[in-house]
Amino acid sequence: MRVLAFLDGTLADPDAAHIRVDDLGLLRGDGIFETILVVGGKPREFGPHLDRLARSAAKMDLPEPDRAAWERAAGLVLENWDGGDEIALKLVCTRGVEGDPEAGPTGFALGLEIDQKVIKARAEGVAAITLDRGIDPALAERAPWLLLGAKSLSYGINMAAIREAGRRGASDVVFTASDGSVLEGPTSTVVVAKDRTLYTPPANIGILPGTTQAGLFRGAEKAGWSVKVESLRVPDLLDADGVFLASSVRKVTRVHTLDGTALPDSSKVHAELAAAYEAEYA
Amino acid sequence: MRVLAFLDGTLADPDAAHIRVDDLGLLRGDGIFETILVVGGKPREFGPHLDRLARSAAKMDLPEPDRAAWERAAGLVLENWDGGDEIALKLVCTRGVEGDPEAGPTGFALGLEIDQKVIKARAEGVAAITLDRGIDPALAERAPWLLLGAKSLSYGINMAAIREAGRRGASDVVFTASDGSVLEGPTSTVVVAKDRTLYTPPANIGILPGTTQAGLFRGAEKAGWSVKVESLRVPDLLDADGVFLASSVRKVTRVHTLDGTALPDSSKVHAELAAAYEAEYA
Repeated sequence: MRVLAFLDGTLADPDAAHIRVDDLGLLRGDGIFETILVVGGKPREFGPHLDRLARSAAKMDLPEPDRAAWERAAGLVLENWDGGDEIALKLVCTRGVEGDPEAGPTGFALGLEIDQKVIKARAEGVAAITLDRGIDPALAERAPWLLLGAKSLSYGINMAAIREAGRRGASDVVFTASDGSVLEGPTSTVVVAKDRTLYTPPANIGILPGTTQAGLFRGAEKAGWSVKVESLRVPDLLDADGVFLASSVRKVTRVHTLDGTALPDSSKVHAELAAAYEAEYA
Repeated sequence: MRVLAFLDGTLADPDAAHIRVDDLGLLRGDGIFETILVVGGKPREFGPHLDRLARSAAKMDLPEPDRAAWERAAGLVLENWDGGDEIALKLVCTRGVEGDPEAGPTGFALGLEIDQKVIKARAEGVAAITLDRGIDPALAERAPWLLLGAKSLSYGINMAAIREAGRRGASDVVFTASDGSVLEGPTSTVVVAKDRTLYTPPANIGILPGTTQAGLFRGAEKAGWSVKVESLRVPDLLDADGVFLASSVRKVTRVHTLDGTALPDSSKVHAELAAAYEAEYA
């Protein structure tokens, strides 16, 4: 099951071609996106996702997203969804067709079923590896043209990192900066649990502020946890009560193995945090 | 005038939609490309472009390009071209549709007219700025998952850098590494002329080996120049007899202003090098 709606409010066949070959999203990875989890017809963190889409647009000199149009397109997908209880709802906006700026951005909302690998990762956790992202933590503020912290369609590196994980017998990645700081996963936010405190790195080191991480932190605080946004290093992961990759579709996924080393069993901490996260949407 | 041919040997309407919204080239910037200059029906450096496409494919774990199929698609564009004497011929290959690996890569050749801005830049030169690329020169070899040196569709940063140049009153960029080494332009190779020697940085510092730079070096050698591949720093640009950005479509474009400072007039050196480059294809 997949449902496709364009930003102009029209439904379309997701199995047909709709994009020109000279769309800059295709030719240059020049655009932005969000992926939103919908459960039982309700999008999670919809406002924060739209806020982040707007921040990505600003970082990339794209027009400010038309919030009402995105809400309408997302609503159309939800109304026409006839699949499972959960939807991975992608919002995609490109700079439009090359050489035709008046045509404006290409925008669509696409509802997809949750991948079976994701369902498995949620339940069983994942093995991850650390990979050098080659940047220093001050770079994002010094060099905004590198688009660190924008959720751009240019995800080639993110995908290559996940393939590298596969070659090393893992399925996910924790990027590290050149000074050893923990950054983020290619498609997730890193969260560490230690002594009933949750930690995640600050976004200004060149990472995306996590919508799921934010929801988890809210839920965990209500459940009596402390939460802190501060710099982490790889030894902090090895020493933690639990290491998690938070993303909309994977929710709060446990990392059970890091760089080939089994981490202490975090199943109980995970169950408690997963419940605190779910309680935010009950 | 634009002509579109797919890798299966079919011509198609370039103004129609041919790409699905779930093509990974669009959703993830996950694919590779080349842009080839065609003059008077003859593609320049066609073999080296196909070689580089194959290297990019290998770096990104894409199937090895079918050389005969690319030659056929390019040939179809050329046969059906009815526009100007020059063509910007793009070869684009994506990983294909998400979740359907059996469908295989999406591949097409697209012939476009040369942009008027490019014609102007060839004649008048460009103002460029230096921008920190945030990487160290050893990173490419240490971290192949960062895809440095692959011509990937994830060109978001390259496009953002050119927009940053525009904000600073320039139209092009010379990226620098964290140690001050000169890297490349967002869509070009840096070439420096000094005392009848041409210099360009080595590709192993994380840049694309330039097809136009290679043609220029061959031509310049025949015209009595020495050529050297070695590390450059920004002061080497300021101190040069000429600084050039080499790319297929812009050929050998002169940089007349760097970071707001007018460089010594390199018109004569440029004319000589442009002639040496053209002689390669006479």
